[in-house]
Amino acid sequence: MKPPTKTPVSSLPSTLGAKAAALPPEVALAPASSPVARYLASLVGQSVNAIDTPSLVVDLDAMRRNLMRMGDFARKHNVRWRPHAKMHKSVWIADMEIRAGAVGVCVQKTAEAEAMAAGGIRNIYISNEVVAGTKLVRVAMLAHQLAAEGGQLAIAVDSVEGINRLAVTMADVRAQFATRAVVDVFVEIDVGQGRCGVPPGQQAVVLAQEIRKHAPLRFAGLQAYHGKAQHVRSAQQRRDMIAIVADDVKYTRKLIEAEGIAPGLVTGAGTGTMVCEAASGIFDELQAGSFLFMDADYAQNERDPAQPVFDHALFVKTQVISSREDHAVCDAGHKSHAVDSGLPTVHVFDKDSELVYANGGDEHGILRPAGGGTRVPTIGKMLWLIPGHCDPTVNLHDYMIGVSGGLRNGVVERIIRVDARGALT
Amino acid sequence: MKPPTKTPVSSLPSTLGAKAAALPPEVALAPASSPVARYLASLVGQSVNAIDTPSLVVDLDAMRRNLMRMGDFARKHNVRWRPHAKMHKSVWIADMEIRAGAVGVCVQKTAEAEAMAAGGIRNIYISNEVVAGTKLVRVAMLAHQLAAEGGQLAIAVDSVEGINRLAVTMADVRAQFATRAVVDVFVEIDVGQGRCGVPPGQQAVVLAQEIRKHAPLRFAGLQAYHGKAQHVRSAQQRRDMIAIVADDVKYTRKLIEAEGIAPGLVTGAGTGTMVCEAASGIFDELQAGSFLFMDADYAQNERDPAQPVFDHALFVKTQVISSREDHAVCDAGHKSHAVDSGLPTVHVFDKDSELVYANGGDEHGILRPAGGGTRVPTIGKMLWLIPGHCDPTVNLHDYMIGVSGGLRNGVVERIIRVDARGALT
Repeated sequence: MKPPTKTPVSSLPSTLGAKAAALPPEVALAPASSPVARYLASLVGQSVNAIDTPSLVVDLDAMRRNLMRMGDFARKHNVRWRPHAKMHKSVWIADMEIRAGAVGVCVQKTAEAEAMAAGGIRNIYISNEVVAGTKLVRVAMLAHQLAAEGGQLAIAVDSVEGINRLAVTMADVRAQFATRAVVDVFVEIDVGQGRCGVPPGQQAVVLAQEIRKHAPLRFAGLQAYHGKAQHVRSAQQRRDMIAIVADDVKYTRKLIEAEGIAPGLVTGAGTGTMVCEAASGIFDELQAGSFLFMDADYAQNERDPAQPVFDHALFVKTQVISSREDHAVCDAGHKSHAVDSGLPTVHVFDKDSELVYANGGDEHGILRPAGGGTRVPTIGKMLWLIPGHCDPTVNLHDYMIGVSGGLRNGVVERIIRVDARGALT
Repeated sequence: MKPPTKTPVSSLPSTLGAKAAALPPEVALAPASSPVARYLASLVGQSVNAIDTPSLVVDLDAMRRNLMRMGDFARKHNVRWRPHAKMHKSVWIADMEIRAGAVGVCVQKTAEAEAMAAGGIRNIYISNEVVAGTKLVRVAMLAHQLAAEGGQLAIAVDSVEGINRLAVTMADVRAQFATRAVVDVFVEIDVGQGRCGVPPGQQAVVLAQEIRKHAPLRFAGLQAYHGKAQHVRSAQQRRDMIAIVADDVKYTRKLIEAEGIAPGLVTGAGTGTMVCEAASGIFDELQAGSFLFMDADYAQNERDPAQPVFDHALFVKTQVISSREDHAVCDAGHKSHAVDSGLPTVHVFDKDSELVYANGGDEHGILRPAGGGTRVPTIGKMLWLIPGHCDPTVNLHDYMIGVSGGLRNGVVERIIRVDARGALT
């Protein structure tokens, strides 16, 4: 394996694994004899009306449009993209992203990487620190496995201790399996998120040098993700924030080069700021993941003119179970959608049926007509919610129901298993 | 089956199913050959130090103390208790609650009821409205199944339409299976929650009369739960709120009796207000569920002097993966614990190691020393979080790890499957 360098996107080989392509959609969703498995198996080909509530539904037409627009954007800006699979947690979707030009996927957890690898995804980056001994053994085993399949594992670090722990375990596994597998190691710098990472500058150089002391590790570049900037509403403010990030990255990269170290790649960016990183001239790889589904929170950002238009593709189908003069109650609450980035919005088919969703607890949502309207939906009415935040919403569900032909008249095209649901470790 | 009446708790038969008692703990947690299943199987009998992070851990000693105190409280007040299994979603725990004197369990979802029944729990109350045709078929089938096993299903309604839909489906299933199974139906009145339910008074009488028109339905009493009162911090304010609830219930019950209808039971209450409902003289059955685990949110309530002391029994074990001068980062975020009722608190072993948990997103938590302290935990350090809200936290996990002997020096006693995890429909 060559060390990663900036490669024109068009020449990148597909990392698509044969195993992923062969996955039948309903396999292992639930014990085959269970009512859930029977229901799911029977659903494919049926009208959207047959979908039980509450259910997580993917508008596959919208998802495919988003995917195409992202691929076009990356090609146009000659930047690699490695979407975050922590968002969808699905091998089938990861595979589709790679077919559309992604170089592989990011994940945050070792168990997510294992789920992706088990499905045939071969190019995986754990964009997070891993320090537990038991987890590092799994990381090293995965590096070995992916290398044997012609793939590559990468990981982030932000401490000498983390590097040493990883190096020791990698050396153990290499000796045990007589392999020369190498793990790509990115040094995480904190570019404003205030979470993991060393400050931009000299400390990153120290870590790059430390990585180079260990044969099983390969310095792969810089991880520079500004999570807080993603949700800043003003496009100009986001541009200003990422301009500072780009300066920090350039400065750090120069220090690394000054030590005679090949600087590798700069990887980062989310859906909120990706146009800024793509235009910066210093970022090689975009990690944006939410663009694929778009959540209610990202929809509140002022769109940067350079940003492709991404459509909502993830919905919670819900039904009204109680109705009275001033409000109705639907069957979707905190256990159907995450509320860390705010409550869901209600998808509007007709202008005169706008509804506001209010907190009804774990299993209920309270619906009131918007803007002085009086039409309260009646018992049995089906509604579609746009979740506030995709990632933790997907993580609540064992499967998503993929629909084509629209939410009103469409049909169920496939069941999408959330392969890495609950993959926390 | 007799209609439910107020029965002295001591004479209530146990609804414990033989199937539940026989459940081996690790069965069906994951495919037997998977790394997760092997890890879980190996964990039992090991020190708490062997538990991977992040993991949901139950302090079984604390849980058993809480259970005993709840049983004592109910006996002392001669009130039935039917704890909400929506909180723990575990058959093993439901069974334990029934052994401690509970008359059965509440759930909010048909799929939760199915999971409980599959594990051998025979006395189940869906304390929520169900209106979808497909779900009502499942409800009717479950009523039939539980009746055949000597158990009983109950459900809540708040509309004539809901009653009619239920009655039609019950009649269908009775005809098809040549059964005379009856479902107990509670009329939900809105006592301040502002969600489901009819107003106290005449509308409830109309629904009770409507229920009595249908042979497969049996009017079982009133569902009167004030969710908002649970989290009011002042004990006096909670007492004031439930005093109004009790008046509303008494008034409604009188109207029902005036029509010559046997009033059945009054059921409701949560962990925050249960002492008030128990003392009201009008509530027959307490639904409190969170007392078993206690979350950070309930811990902020001023304790009513009449309330048993309930201890925290649910924790997320987490590890520090990054550390610098002013803060550390742990591996538990929104995907490990629910944040709808606030962020988790950090369990304190030593007074001088108090930490404040701040939002670090889906997979991270940010930890800072509390009150001007300077001790930032170092990489590898294990910490224990007390989740803000039990119910949706449990729903994020496929299993809980039951520990006895304390969090510091204890051992893993058993793995507790979250049988109804993701049971949304």
